[in-house]
Amino acid sequence: MDAATLWQRYQDWLYYHEGLGFYLDISRMRFEDDLVATMQPRFECAFQAMAALEAGAIANPDEQRQVGHYWLRDPDLAPNADLKQEIVETLEEIASFTQKIHTGTLHPPQAPRFTDILSVGIGGSALGPQFVAAALAPTAPPMQIHFIDNTDPTGIDRVLTQLQDHLPSTLVLIISKSGGTPETRNGMVEVKAAFRDRHLDFADHAVAITGKGSSLDQIATTEGWLATFPMHDWVGGRTSELSAVGLLAASLQGIDISAMLAGAKEMDAATRVPELRHNPAALLAFAWYFAGNGRGEKDMVVLPYKDSLLLFSRYLQQLVMESLGKEKDLDGNIVHQGIAVYGNKGSTDQHAYVQQLREGVLNFFMTFIEVLADRQGPSVEVEPGVTSGDYLSGLLQGTRQALYENDRDSITVTIPQVTPRSVGALIALYERAVGLYGFLVNVNAYHQPGVEAGKKAAAAILDLQRQVMQVLQQTPTSLTLADLAERLAAPDQQETIYKILRHLQANQRGIKLEGNPGHPTSLKVSRA
Amino acid sequence: MDAATLWQRYQDWLYYHEGLGFYLDISRMRFEDDLVATMQPRFECAFQAMAALEAGAIANPDEQRQVGHYWLRDPDLAPNADLKQEIVETLEEIASFTQKIHTGTLHPPQAPRFTDILSVGIGGSALGPQFVAAALAPTAPPMQIHFIDNTDPTGIDRVLTQLQDHLPSTLVLIISKSGGTPETRNGMVEVKAAFRDRHLDFADHAVAITGKGSSLDQIATTEGWLATFPMHDWVGGRTSELSAVGLLAASLQGIDISAMLAGAKEMDAATRVPELRHNPAALLAFAWYFAGNGRGEKDMVVLPYKDSLLLFSRYLQQLVMESLGKEKDLDGNIVHQGIAVYGNKGSTDQHAYVQQLREGVLNFFMTFIEVLADRQGPSVEVEPGVTSGDYLSGLLQGTRQALYENDRDSITVTIPQVTPRSVGALIALYERAVGLYGFLVNVNAYHQPGVEAGKKAAAAILDLQRQVMQVLQQTPTSLTLADLAERLAAPDQQETIYKILRHLQANQRGIKLEGNPGHPTSLKVSRA
Repeated sequence: MDAATLWQRYQDWLYYHEGLGFYLDISRMRFEDDLVATMQPRFECAFQAMAALEAGAIANPDEQRQVGHYWLRDPDLAPNADLKQEIVETLEEIASFTQKIHTGTLHPPQAPRFTDILSVGIGGSALGPQFVAAALAPTAPPMQIHFIDNTDPTGIDRVLTQLQDHLPSTLVLIISKSGGTPETRNGMVEVKAAFRDRHLDFADHAVAITGKGSSLDQIATTEGWLATFPMHDWVGGRTSELSAVGLLAASLQGIDISAMLAGAKEMDAATRVPELRHNPAALLAFAWYFAGNGRGEKDMVVLPYKDSLLLFSRYLQQLVMESLGKEKDLDGNIVHQGIAVYGNKGSTDQHAYVQQLREGVLNFFMTFIEVLADRQGPSVEVEPGVTSGDYLSGLLQGTRQALYENDRDSITVTIPQVTPRSVGALIALYERAVGLYGFLVNVNAYHQPGVEAGKKAAAAILDLQRQVMQVLQQTPTSLTLADLAERLAAPDQQETIYKILRHLQANQRGIKLEGNPGHPTSLKVSRA
Repeated sequence: MDAATLWQRYQDWLYYHEGLGFYLDISRMRFEDDLVATMQPRFECAFQAMAALEAGAIANPDEQRQVGHYWLRDPDLAPNADLKQEIVETLEEIASFTQKIHTGTLHPPQAPRFTDILSVGIGGSALGPQFVAAALAPTAPPMQIHFIDNTDPTGIDRVLTQLQDHLPSTLVLIISKSGGTPETRNGMVEVKAAFRDRHLDFADHAVAITGKGSSLDQIATTEGWLATFPMHDWVGGRTSELSAVGLLAASLQGIDISAMLAGAKEMDAATRVPELRHNPAALLAFAWYFAGNGRGEKDMVVLPYKDSLLLFSRYLQQLVMESLGKEKDLDGNIVHQGIAVYGNKGSTDQHAYVQQLREGVLNFFMTFIEVLADRQGPSVEVEPGVTSGDYLSGLLQGTRQALYENDRDSITVTIPQVTPRSVGALIALYERAVGLYGFLVNVNAYHQPGVEAGKKAAAAILDLQRQVMQVLQQTPTSLTLADLAERLAAPDQQETIYKILRHLQANQRGIKLEGNPGHPTSLKVSRA
């Protein structure tokens, strides 16, 4: 394509939203214009399905649930007055709770005000809050946030050690829709123990964000926690950033959540337009479809050229992969759908793997995220007339060109700066793009049936561990793995038992393993 | 495969290193035994090539360089006495410099000792130090480390704001082999300006880690910086963690670098064994080759089940992708090689994308990294007889099982705990696996020719920006994009010029753009 044609293509496909100062460029995806015509009927169906979803249809048929995250930023669109009220009330409660915490009206027994937030949650209850904290928290926030987002004991210890002196003035958010997420439950138990060790009453520090009537809701009520905020049945974890899950933490950090909601609302309106060329989410979904032939044949590499957006691709990993990565389509056909997402930030990642992107295996398409404003205030010159920000901008454009020349396609998203409004808009953009793409490839983008298998297998392993410990406690002699498996009536589980024993021994849990651990059959196990 | 056969396969392929307490399991990669026989001749060639490389052969033919990172942990293997001496002396200098800094013998003019480290570097000069700091820094380190690893002005401001009060006691490491890396140069200029603003003399705080005679080396000498440590010509950026690049920062943070080197040395010895079944790096390379048919057809998803290893996959992205992602093989054939790498940590990522991994597009293989020790000290029970660490372990095993049942292959690496020794061993393991895989697929794993194109394109854009500003300063009237491009004798560059203008305007750089920014042809530009 010659330069003039490419420049024309750029202008033809450039999407611009004046209110948000937002640009989307898919001109460097090498689709032919006739693909647009071919896809037109599918997009019409997708727009209709999306309209029905927004109107309150059951869009998650497996779980018989409505999908209502769009209502969160425009409660007038909620399908009935009760839902609208729930949304509005939650926002009011977040505002009034924040005010009480910031002013010290609500304070812990041993301190005049809360100084820190400890957020305990995983998946959708962590990725959004972490992304937003990194993107938007002021450098001197009214409260400093810390996260426990796993069941790793060393990781938990590290966070608690960092908090150490601040524990008496730490507000703990426990975030779990069902209350049954083991990692979060474990985090809560560990944090409670830390409070107990310091003779602090956990309930005076604790806030639950959970589904109404969940086990966590009941604990919070019984123990008299400071507050409980709702996780609505009609908001999934990966689209919960603009519910209490994300907004409470953001608000407590001094982030303007009204602006986040306003940005999302404005992008929602823009992505509701039922015309491919005038709908940035549809353009994204179209570009993704083209890139991977509607089968996820290419990975989505996301590189924001802005340090504060580092966690955006991690946030998108969940939003995109958990929504689209499905075995079956809505008609029950085996399709093995999905799009893999990865990336950190530019230009840093240029020094990590642009070598492969430019020259190596062509299994990806790129999304550049450009932020126009470099910083607050003036910049020093790093060369005559040139700033650090000019370099960042030049490196983005240069890399995009260098990839394109080598037949590597890219999308470019441009925002004016990283603000609550633009971050809200980005979240809304990708939520809608994922929803539309889900309709295009006919999958349920709102369930996650594949997560259960691993959880069940893990529960079975913990059951087996309990039995292993019980048998060993009752057995005075040492046993081979085969003996032990026999006694557990689990002769097929020798490998699992071997690993359980290796882990128990490494943690001084009353197990003695003798023999060569590299030769499992040589091992003898006994109680220590 | 029935349970007994699978258990036998597990034992047959289990690699165990007694000294390191290290395990590698490739039994869940579904290769047939005859692939081993088929690959045998290639491995013999690879082992020979690796032996020649270690003996000092030119293993990076494009750049006519030796590849010597293995000598760093066993200087006796260096091919001559001079190289050996360089290595030993550098280690001694790191030890003595650390001692002077920690004791305050060497201290900044305005403080009794250095309290913080500000590390300025990108790519191989950042990823290793960041990974090691997250993995190994004590919770109360003798010095706290901060990183500037990009040319993002807001990102730089954020780090400098965090340092604020500590700037007078901050030791700055500027890390760049050539001294010509623009991001690092820009970081240095910005940091120097911050010191000047605080009336602090930068030279009293600055250390260079750079190639002998580089432009950075000259600056450090001329300005009288505290010290300069060498980046050897025969160590590439992505294998420089166990050179001064990684070791100085680690040592200053109180990390036992001798143990890191010892772990790497022990793993080097283990991965030097020229027998596939008895060489864990060869087993890894074999598994990678099988997974992607020697053409990178599957992504490598790396999930360490340990928070402190979060950055390992980001470190591996560079090591693997920059080494293997090549257009041409050593014979000049177009091959588009590489393996894409991504991942964060388990079990956290289970809540992000294990849905897709289990059910969705089968374009990956998994590497689980298991750490046997849960924490220092005892654990609370989260259920009777069960700890948080048991859950982490159970979730790893359960996910591995659930993926395997659905035809998703995985490798499992097991280490006893996260220590300097085991981290050194992991680094050495993957360095060698990448090296062997490079020989298997016949690419130069030690150059990065594809990085240049983006850099050159970026430089051209900055040139064009200078010209744009010059023309506008000399032009009293307003111009269309086409006019401006004409005057610049760059009619083919309208898109680039448009983007330059958008960026300049967003940063109040003396440019006024009028019209609809979504319709570039409508725009008129003038000096503001």
